[in-house]
Amino acid sequence: MATQAAFLVRLPQLAQLQSGGGDRAMAPARVRVAGAIGGQQGGGGAAAKAPRRGGAGCRASLIEPDGGRLVDLVAPEEGGRRAALRREAAALPHRVRLGRVDKEWVHVLSEGWASPLRGFMREAEFLQALHFNAIRGEDGRMVNMSVPIVLAVGDAQRRAIQADGATRVALVDDRDQPIAILSDIEIYKHNKEERIARTWGTTAPGLPYVEEAIANAGDWLIGGDLEVIEPIKYNDGLDQYRLSPAQLREEFARRNADAVFAFQLRNPVHNGHALLMTDTRRRLLEMGYKNPVLLLHPLGGFTKADDVPLSWRMKQHEKVLEAGVLNPESTVVAIFPSPMHYAGPTEVQWHAKARINAGANFYIVGRDPAGMGHPIEKRDLYDADHGKKVLSMAPGLERLNILPFKMRTLAKNRESPPDGFMCPGGWKVLVDYYDSLVPSEGSSKLREPVAA
Amino acid sequence: MATQAAFLVRLPQLAQLQSGGGDRAMAPARVRVAGAIGGQQGGGGAAAKAPRRGGAGCRASLIEPDGGRLVDLVAPEEGGRRAALRREAAALPHRVRLGRVDKEWVHVLSEGWASPLRGFMREAEFLQALHFNAIRGEDGRMVNMSVPIVLAVGDAQRRAIQADGATRVALVDDRDQPIAILSDIEIYKHNKEERIARTWGTTAPGLPYVEEAIANAGDWLIGGDLEVIEPIKYNDGLDQYRLSPAQLREEFARRNADAVFAFQLRNPVHNGHALLMTDTRRRLLEMGYKNPVLLLHPLGGFTKADDVPLSWRMKQHEKVLEAGVLNPESTVVAIFPSPMHYAGPTEVQWHAKARINAGANFYIVGRDPAGMGHPIEKRDLYDADHGKKVLSMAPGLERLNILPFKMRTLAKNRESPPDGFMCPGGWKVLVDYYDSLVPSEGSSKLREPVAA
Repeated sequence: MATQAAFLVRLPQLAQLQSGGGDRAMAPARVRVAGAIGGQQGGGGAAAKAPRRGGAGCRASLIEPDGGRLVDLVAPEEGGRRAALRREAAALPHRVRLGRVDKEWVHVLSEGWASPLRGFMREAEFLQALHFNAIRGEDGRMVNMSVPIVLAVGDAQRRAIQADGATRVALVDDRDQPIAILSDIEIYKHNKEERIARTWGTTAPGLPYVEEAIANAGDWLIGGDLEVIEPIKYNDGLDQYRLSPAQLREEFARRNADAVFAFQLRNPVHNGHALLMTDTRRRLLEMGYKNPVLLLHPLGGFTKADDVPLSWRMKQHEKVLEAGVLNPESTVVAIFPSPMHYAGPTEVQWHAKARINAGANFYIVGRDPAGMGHPIEKRDLYDADHGKKVLSMAPGLERLNILPFKMRTLAKNRESPPDGFMCPGGWKVLVDYYDSLVPSEGSSKLREPVAA
Repeated sequence: MATQAAFLVRLPQLAQLQSGGGDRAMAPARVRVAGAIGGQQGGGGAAAKAPRRGGAGCRASLIEPDGGRLVDLVAPEEGGRRAALRREAAALPHRVRLGRVDKEWVHVLSEGWASPLRGFMREAEFLQALHFNAIRGEDGRMVNMSVPIVLAVGDAQRRAIQADGATRVALVDDRDQPIAILSDIEIYKHNKEERIARTWGTTAPGLPYVEEAIANAGDWLIGGDLEVIEPIKYNDGLDQYRLSPAQLREEFARRNADAVFAFQLRNPVHNGHALLMTDTRRRLLEMGYKNPVLLLHPLGGFTKADDVPLSWRMKQHEKVLEAGVLNPESTVVAIFPSPMHYAGPTEVQWHAKARINAGANFYIVGRDPAGMGHPIEKRDLYDADHGKKVLSMAPGLERLNILPFKMRTLAKNRESPPDGFMCPGGWKVLVDYYDSLVPSEGSSKLREPVAA
């Protein structure tokens, strides 16, 4: 806990750095992160707005969100809607308590990462996600949607809601504070075994997301339209990095980006990553783009216990950016609020699809994305090449350009950690993190290679 | 075995009946089955042919096969291709031995039920089937393909083939006779756990298809283009009912069908079914079709041990047709050569897609299609409504009209078996079948309801 506190104390430095007010010798003063654009909650129109400066007419517009319009489920600040929702939520007879992961999904849904989804899945959407990894939109076109975004309730609550014939329920946090209202609800069976088998391709015990969010969840799912009372905040000092798709689109537009390439990561950035990202920009310039912008997009939701925690990763990213290995003019760092499934080829589609909604038209995919070891067998859970292959064939992702890792460059850099592998400052953060753990999980971990 | 022999002896009667030469008092003399059109192996052009008699210009053309053209992988009888293939197969250094189910898939592939698939799946097709239940065709459109159609090989054979750099292998039957050649082969890993989980939504032991065709199969899959030496025959007295999609299309065209409604079944026909089919035709006539034709299409491949065997089912269907409960002018009875997965919502898509290729533009779907009890839990493996729902939303099946069962009619008829449930002759066949089993599996089975 001491190390966590120390990290929080340091955050203002990071904020200063990111907003362009840094005073260090290297690149950080020029690292521009979308935090600079302030806390405005996008209303879905940001992508269509003209760029704020220069270049009018010379910039290709950003990729269209799935369904044609970015979903925004947060009640507007003006007009009294938030107060009205809060009053209604307090009075509603049925209140569904959100767990940590549930709340992360409310966050994800509220900002339109899952556009055109407008709430927790009803059964038709759930079945399409499970069987087809894609959902047919109102216009008849398929949009990608590979992981179920669902909310579970127990049998007693299900019976109570159905006995009342209720159509609206309040969603509340762990202190019983109202977060949102779910309306036009539909309750259907939560067949956990089938959900797990079709999402992970295994039912072996020990899948992190299953243990965290499914094993002890209710036997029913409740879907419906979501209206969120106010933007989801975590008050952990990192909220400024939690930019909505609308905010990201606004930032890309402001920078006159004519290509946005997204890099999902849940691990420290090493020099192999940095080389990869620099090289990707070079390739895009060669393809004729004038201003490709990198979205460096660490995942911020639930991760398994032995992943490096978000706060430490952000601190590590800060050091890497300080070292100037990435061009701050063409890099946006933000947090992707989704929880992690570790569902390999199924999940990588979600990671890519969500970035389309944030304006990315290029997606970098490495070896074994969203993969992990098999929970009970001595092998990787997924074939290392399947993620890339499935992504390249996935329905609803036709508009997205897939950029596979250049493995040799990466491997070359991974051969000799830490020399040339990571800037010394970033390495030090990792050493500090592992030293902060109990002895049995100590810094010996650093001997294992790290990958996105 | 005695009863089996007795059945075979009776087959000529059935053939006579079906070909219009029956001499019984009831409808059978008029039951027209496509067996009458002879054994011509269709070449993909049957659907486009003009009907042989009357009605020119007043018949809508049959639904187009998936991919626009019906696949036919059987070497033509003329031109010496069969002899050449047989010679080559005998000389090829690598021979893959086909099991019963493998050979059924060769049959299915060879006749184009899985059009546009031209052989056992390569990895790209396998992954698309597993993750999306659909495959993108050469024209960019999605065709439905929900079950993997794959061929397994062991590790020793895989190494031998790869060491030689072979691109063609012979497929041979259990007596080592060549059946086909697989070319442009691709060998990839057979992750059984993932295949099973994604296909069945469970990995519980005891799934019939898994035990028959996966559990003991090799750890590699071999895909490629298939060329079959001659039409697959079973020599069980039922080959005349095994009509290819091209033959069925020719028959539908000959009858001037302007709608074809398919009914998949793997159980005896009871009066509920018959009412349903009669009622479906009435509804189609009301919709404005002039000549809707029923494809009564029992599955003829692998089924689980406690299903009524195909030979008994065909005998039972004969009695039901004799009783005149279906209009022979508008009914085609044929055998669908596919093996059964018992994979519920996943498999029902395959059942429907294959019938599109045979010319059906309407598909009747009942409760819990392709379902079964959970192998180790006391519940159905699938939600009874999911099959219908998944089918109605499946990618690549947009052109197919789904006709759900009218449950009440059916239920009414199932309440009081055997009165009004099945014609006495058909019932007698079932009694005989169950009496032919060992005592422990005897006719008490008849107390359980039967469903398609």
